[in-house]
Amino acid sequence: MRNGKLKLTAASLAFAGVALTAAAAEPPAKAPQAFRHVAVKAVADILAASKPSEWRRLDPENTLYLDLPGGRVVIELAPGFAPHHVANIKALVRAGYFDNAAIIRSQDNYVVQWGQPDEKRSLGPAKKTLKAEFDRRIGKDARLDRLQDPDTYAPEVGFAQGFPAARNRKLGREWLTHCYGVVGVGRDEGADSGGGTELYAVNGQAPRHLDRNVTLVGRVVQGMELLSVMPRGTGDLGFYKTTGEQTPIRRIRVAADLPASERTELEALRTDSATFKTLMESRRNRREPWFKVPAGRLGVCNAPLPVRPAKG
Amino acid sequence: MRNGKLKLTAASLAFAGVALTAAAAEPPAKAPQAFRHVAVKAVADILAASKPSEWRRLDPENTLYLDLPGGRVVIELAPGFAPHHVANIKALVRAGYFDNAAIIRSQDNYVVQWGQPDEKRSLGPAKKTLKAEFDRRIGKDARLDRLQDPDTYAPEVGFAQGFPAARNRKLGREWLTHCYGVVGVGRDEGADSGGGTELYAVNGQAPRHLDRNVTLVGRVVQGMELLSVMPRGTGDLGFYKTTGEQTPIRRIRVAADLPASERTELEALRTDSATFKTLMESRRNRREPWFKVPAGRLGVCNAPLPVRPAKG
Repeated sequence: MRNGKLKLTAASLAFAGVALTAAAAEPPAKAPQAFRHVAVKAVADILAASKPSEWRRLDPENTLYLDLPGGRVVIELAPGFAPHHVANIKALVRAGYFDNAAIIRSQDNYVVQWGQPDEKRSLGPAKKTLKAEFDRRIGKDARLDRLQDPDTYAPEVGFAQGFPAARNRKLGREWLTHCYGVVGVGRDEGADSGGGTELYAVNGQAPRHLDRNVTLVGRVVQGMELLSVMPRGTGDLGFYKTTGEQTPIRRIRVAADLPASERTELEALRTDSATFKTLMESRRNRREPWFKVPAGRLGVCNAPLPVRPAKG
Repeated sequence: MRNGKLKLTAASLAFAGVALTAAAAEPPAKAPQAFRHVAVKAVADILAASKPSEWRRLDPENTLYLDLPGGRVVIELAPGFAPHHVANIKALVRAGYFDNAAIIRSQDNYVVQWGQPDEKRSLGPAKKTLKAEFDRRIGKDARLDRLQDPDTYAPEVGFAQGFPAARNRKLGREWLTHCYGVVGVGRDEGADSGGGTELYAVNGQAPRHLDRNVTLVGRVVQGMELLSVMPRGTGDLGFYKTTGEQTPIRRIRVAADLPASERTELEALRTDSATFKTLMESRRNRREPWFKVPAGRLGVCNAPLPVRPAKG
């Protein structure tokens, strides 16, 4: 009804295989207009002009599939930032800990969280808790593809190993940032009280005050829209009051453990690529006719991190 | 199952009548813990110690009720920032324009949008389009209750007339900011092509690049969780492909037009109050035991704007 004239839009791009965050999405258009074509074409053109070498295939050993009744959520893990938690989560997954798990919490504009309601479920060789991995030392060769604009919460922000990240050089520390779709480890009061048995994804405004207070282990690179629409829990903190309200998780798997036919092969645009730099600049200053006042700024949680089906 | 021990939490506070944004919400707790009590108690205590005079009752003449099958969404309008659009939207509402309207778009991490699919519906005395009200001149007595921390997108941010707002003194202009739940006017390519027949609310990370490009007319103060879970549209830009996918809107009404028995009387904490200042500081530096590294910062779209049922 509203897209008869459209040939190339954010959504159709997604169908064509390029998933973008909302920052790359279109303005609140009122009706099908030519500008939509122009607007998204800017992104599509930028990506279409990229070289194959500017994309990196997701490592199946560090990719999780969270299979819901409604489809698959793909999570890229960040072993560079949380090596022990990532290893532990994979051990939990491989022990079948998350088979028949559930979405147990959905708090509006905050987090959607999942875990295993069956408290007797074996952890296998995994540990229940681990020492926190809230941040890490800035290594000599650690690269941050920086964004130049000021950030409310950190001295420097940008992208490290494909993830939104922040740095404080005075402290010599860097950490992943709580952007939309980023996945973290639920914990109790103690810093070392989490281990990965309960995980959450940010479903609203980036709760950056949680940065350096939670071990972040990755981000949802596809399927976040399946998690974000979970009915908000009416219990405390958005937890569901009854098991019946929970959405079942069929299983979680490490991509490497599935046969090729069951995998969702994706590749991500390298954040150290020329195309990514061009993309960031195009988002800082939107030149499409729809925009009357380009922001001239770009926030770390507003930057698109393009992912598309891997070729071949 | 998870809240047996809890006495006072974010969610129960909401039931008790204080709706907070996620910024005030609890950390991604793993299990019911005493700290939850402490954490939210900090907010509850702050609000409990407030004076009645620190709250302002929402003006029924500038409050909209969007009635969905699942409940009511309450929107506070911002005539101070968009006087002509607010007047026009009220004229549309009073002409019955939004009776049997629909949610027509839900784009993940961006906006949920509504309008009247019936293209023959009369606008009544309202206009289809208006001159843009993207920003306004900073008046001599215009107050901005500032946040002190840097903002990525604007030189100054804070709260004006109860809404998140930004300023550029060099330009002599101020404007409302695209935070979660803020409501804007969909438009076509021309700046003056919107009028209020299609409205949207932000449902994810604040798309601040839209600031000064859209006329913002208010914010959802209650019921955002009804809008945010709308299944994402699979058409272009998150528009629904078929009418069947749309969620019906029973009606939109100006609060003043309903009898007292049908109203949702709310009051909002004044942003120029001492309690609000205390609340902001408590959010900048979370002192609850759960937090190991207080942020020491607070973003304009992370600040809670408490609303509760009006007394009497």
